[in-house]
Amino acid sequence: MERCAIGLVGWGTVGGGVVEILARDRALFHDRCGLDLQLKTIVTKTPSRRRDQAATGARVSDRLEDLTGDPEIRTVIHLVGGIDEATRICRALLEAGKNVITANKAMLAMRGDELFALAAAKGVCIAFEAAVAGGIPVIAALRDGLVANHIDGIAAILNGTCNFILTSMESRGVGYAEALAEAQRLGYAEADPTLDVDGTDTAHKLAILARIAFNGRIPLTGIRVEGIQSITFDDIRSARTMGARIKLLAVAQRRDQGLELRVAPTLVPLDHPLASVNANFNGIVIQGSAVKTLLLVGPGAGALPTASAVLADLVDVVTGRYQFTASRFRFFRSDADVPLVPEAEELTSSYARFTVPDRAGVLAGIASTLGNHGVSVLSVYQGAPDPSGSAVIEATTHPQRGGAFLSAIEAIDRAGLTIKPTVVLRRL
Amino acid sequence: MERCAIGLVGWGTVGGGVVEILARDRALFHDRCGLDLQLKTIVTKTPSRRRDQAATGARVSDRLEDLTGDPEIRTVIHLVGGIDEATRICRALLEAGKNVITANKAMLAMRGDELFALAAAKGVCIAFEAAVAGGIPVIAALRDGLVANHIDGIAAILNGTCNFILTSMESRGVGYAEALAEAQRLGYAEADPTLDVDGTDTAHKLAILARIAFNGRIPLTGIRVEGIQSITFDDIRSARTMGARIKLLAVAQRRDQGLELRVAPTLVPLDHPLASVNANFNGIVIQGSAVKTLLLVGPGAGALPTASAVLADLVDVVTGRYQFTASRFRFFRSDADVPLVPEAEELTSSYARFTVPDRAGVLAGIASTLGNHGVSVLSVYQGAPDPSGSAVIEATTHPQRGGAFLSAIEAIDRAGLTIKPTVVLRRL
Repeated sequence: MERCAIGLVGWGTVGGGVVEILARDRALFHDRCGLDLQLKTIVTKTPSRRRDQAATGARVSDRLEDLTGDPEIRTVIHLVGGIDEATRICRALLEAGKNVITANKAMLAMRGDELFALAAAKGVCIAFEAAVAGGIPVIAALRDGLVANHIDGIAAILNGTCNFILTSMESRGVGYAEALAEAQRLGYAEADPTLDVDGTDTAHKLAILARIAFNGRIPLTGIRVEGIQSITFDDIRSARTMGARIKLLAVAQRRDQGLELRVAPTLVPLDHPLASVNANFNGIVIQGSAVKTLLLVGPGAGALPTASAVLADLVDVVTGRYQFTASRFRFFRSDADVPLVPEAEELTSSYARFTVPDRAGVLAGIASTLGNHGVSVLSVYQGAPDPSGSAVIEATTHPQRGGAFLSAIEAIDRAGLTIKPTVVLRRL
Repeated sequence: MERCAIGLVGWGTVGGGVVEILARDRALFHDRCGLDLQLKTIVTKTPSRRRDQAATGARVSDRLEDLTGDPEIRTVIHLVGGIDEATRICRALLEAGKNVITANKAMLAMRGDELFALAAAKGVCIAFEAAVAGGIPVIAALRDGLVANHIDGIAAILNGTCNFILTSMESRGVGYAEALAEAQRLGYAEADPTLDVDGTDTAHKLAILARIAFNGRIPLTGIRVEGIQSITFDDIRSARTMGARIKLLAVAQRRDQGLELRVAPTLVPLDHPLASVNANFNGIVIQGSAVKTLLLVGPGAGALPTASAVLADLVDVVTGRYQFTASRFRFFRSDADVPLVPEAEELTSSYARFTVPDRAGVLAGIASTLGNHGVSVLSVYQGAPDPSGSAVIEATTHPQRGGAFLSAIEAIDRAGLTIKPTVVLRRL
């Protein structure tokens, strides 16, 4: 039985899942790929982890040199979060000639170009299926399963925290703050949830998917990002009235002029498959020239599901198949910038909710301002006035350049037709 | 640019998609894997196809020897339907040392063991992503993406024709015959739809999925198969009342004693992800020990989607990666029989609809017969009697051994408590 010594750096939630599966399912891996995968050394900064050492059969250390300096360990699983420290560790592993398997999307999105270049120079590889959508094998699907497709578009729910919060706002009828607090209590949101709820994490994942789907450099600054922090229960209720649900969507859409990239809370019609991707699940819809539509849904986070992706990469790397793919296929090697569509040229359908005084002429004023700005209105709905004398007007548009609609909204608010700032959302 | 000569035998719907993409997207394949894929020779029995020859750049022939005898062609795409003729052609290709890419699930399910053995003896391979669920890369997901998982269960909609018919019965409120006629008119059902509607095609695909998921021989006779021919609009309507939808499901479920395999029309609750897989789409839910739940949805048939899977296999084979996988991984090599659960031991939830005379005591009679047979009833519902004096009683059960429920139904019908044969369906 061929023994294969593995290293691990970072022993948090996902690391725990990896350790558990490697200890429990040794026979499975041997059955499937003929290798005895042995977790030899774990490097962690958390001293309390040392008491778990016995169960793993591994040596637990706090010195990275125990991985970089061990010639028997050729592949290291890198489960360190953050950016700077994670990049430093990843670089040290690559410099030492180790193959790296990582789940760190922020590191790859921010520093991927330098890391992939270093890996190529050192003749090793970086595998990262676990960096996007947890246990869903979406990187492999884009790279291998859809190799015969031009990718036309991707629309995806990539952050389980946001999806949990939005689902819980709708199902429990509560506001953002209460839903966030519940998510934190249940472990679906971190103590500091900023990078999840402001859309940054989703943007990192979108950048990684788009790099593979569209085969080129995707500058993070080219992704327009809005978070879910200002979504209210009123928004959720309005969405429901319209037969839709609000999801934080990552969208990459190929247009004639280039690629549109954005992360934004978006009204998704209830009959769209992403509308029923709820709670902490992730979902990805890929439009391809041959397959037309492919939907993948699964747990986007969690110890075991993410470990499932890490270990699929591990098997791919220790058998040498990943290196075969990386050297033979050209998904990772293009340095060309993917041309992006400027914001004003972006083609989206929108929704606006105007809060207006209850008096004659307001609806006409709004409609004519939209018309004057060339906005192609799909529907306008005026609700009954509430006791305080304000009313709500909701408008939706056909797909059109983003600039015109935003200018019209600004003009409407400026003309004093509204008594609160207007809420604007994208529609799928 | 490295030229790679490809052969094709069978130029029907999917063959047309393959020819179209290879002609149109030559640059795409070259970009992605550095090969110039050239369709050199097409063998077809349809003489009318010859007039399309010019567009393909290929030689069109009716002699298989033009593939088997051409040393330049090392890989042949096999898109011949049926079993005996398809097997004969496949054997001839393998004997001649050609790698084979096929979409023929019936051939693989019935004759796969001998074909894979022949391929191994000849040092060539058979790739078959397109044989199950069209454009959905489900074979790769099971084999590679979920390599770190014990597969606990699969539930899937694998036949677009049946799914189209069932969806159309519900959405148009029509019976089976009318929905089938519409499916035929629109090209979603063949003139002779037997193998689709009787569940045979679904069973073939389930056998292929289960062979990979559970790594062993799956005898087709071990799959219990029911079709959709006797589903009525009453069944569809009852399902809707219960918040469910009828789908022809392929199910493989791992139990302590072995594997349960079946194909049957099944009540799927509306909030289950497979309930919203409609029309001609396919959907597969995989339960894995690490990933927990993975859902894949996409077009299960059609020229371009199926060609997407054929060409993903083609790239895998011509680069040599598929051979790497086949030699290194053990999914295809086990000759062990997978132990199966006998029918009477099968654990399922069921639904029954009794048509009864409108008189006192019938409900009690049914309930006591179910109880006497040890059936654990989940719910019983009695509808208002109709003008003719008959009434409907619907019962659902908790998961339990299949034998007890069927014996109870038989006893109820035999005791004259019903005035029509009782309708029995599975529940997911």
